[in-house]
Amino acid sequence: MKLIMAVVQDQDSNKLSQALINHQLRATKLASTGGFLKAGNTTFMIGVEDERVQEALDVIKKNCQSREQVAPPVSPMGGNVDAYVPYPVEVPVGGATVFVLPVEQFHQF
Amino acid sequence: MKLIMAVVQDQDSNKLSQALINHQLRATKLASTGGFLKAGNTTFMIGVEDERVQEALDVIKKNCQSREQVAPPVSPMGGNVDAYVPYPVEVPVGGATVFVLPVEQFHQF
Amino acid sequence: MKLIMAVVQDQDSNKLSQALINHQLRATKLASTGGFLKAGNTTFMIGVEDERVQEALDVIKKNCQSREQVAPPVSPMGGNVDAYVPYPVEVPVGGATVFVLPVEQFHQF
Ligand code: NI
Ligand code: NI
Ligand code: NI
Repeated sequence: MKLIMAVVQDQDSNKLSQALINHQLRATKLASTGGFLKAGNTTFMIGVEDERVQEALDVIKKNCQSREQVAPPVSPMGGNVDAYVPYPVEVPVGGATVFVLPVEQFHQF
Repeated sequence: MKLIMAVVQDQDSNKLSQALINHQLRATKLASTGGFLKAGNTTFMIGVEDERVQEALDVIKKNCQSREQVAPPVSPMGGNVDAYVPYPVEVPVGGATVFVLPVEQFHQF
Repeated sequence: MKLIMAVVQDQDSNKLSQALINHQLRATKLASTGGFLKAGNTTFMIGVEDERVQEALDVIKKNCQSREQVAPPVSPMGGNVDAYVPYPVEVPVGGATVFVLPVEQFHQF
């Protein structure tokens, strides 16, 4: 048994939750902020048998991998013309920081 | 030293907190949701000397073990007669998912 | 790689966050309550290479170590004269409870 601690961006959180359920991998979500990733993240605690660690990592990678997203042109707010970006830009989103921890005992009561 | 991560239902959380204090076992609670157990749970992080791991597990089991509870008859709401259960039913409540993690260093500053 | 779980009082949380950033140590904060320390604490999850564990522990100790603080005289509220403390008193503040956990795998997606 291993305990996977995965910090993912909030925007990927629901997608990962559903994918873990589809794979019958059981997880608990901890409210978390800042740090490894930009503001707004969730920490998944996933208990998994040794032989399914790679499957769980694949599910996390597939649903949370860092990628570029096209952001729409930004309209100038309050006359701040300096901040105006008149063309679509690609911004990085997603990403996951994942620790696999050894477990000495596992119990369900 | 071990670190016990125990996910328990919210309804058992206060009872477990008090029992851990009574046994002079020190815990921190993390806000958590979903996953191992039905919605509404709390994750206890309990730091414990090796020789007291079994005592801590016994306290968790005693206060959080999965059990059946008699729910009162459900009254029909908004005329939804299909949902009406006219007799008391037993519903499962409680339960804990527990990981015991090895600790390489422990410090109190 | 190690995963450091550090429970610190809320009043030291911002100072520790900034110090970890200054040292380019990456952390995620988990909302936590009670237990190891008096009410109002934050749990830092810090992923760190083996050779930087001591540096991370030094940063935590420097910013969160238990210490005495002079509290201003307490004014009697609602006529409760028994609770009146007419002179400054030293009260303990801060402190950190720290677990260093072994990590079997570390991934960034
Ligand atoms: Ni899939
Ligand atoms: Ni007891
Ligand atoms: Ni420094």
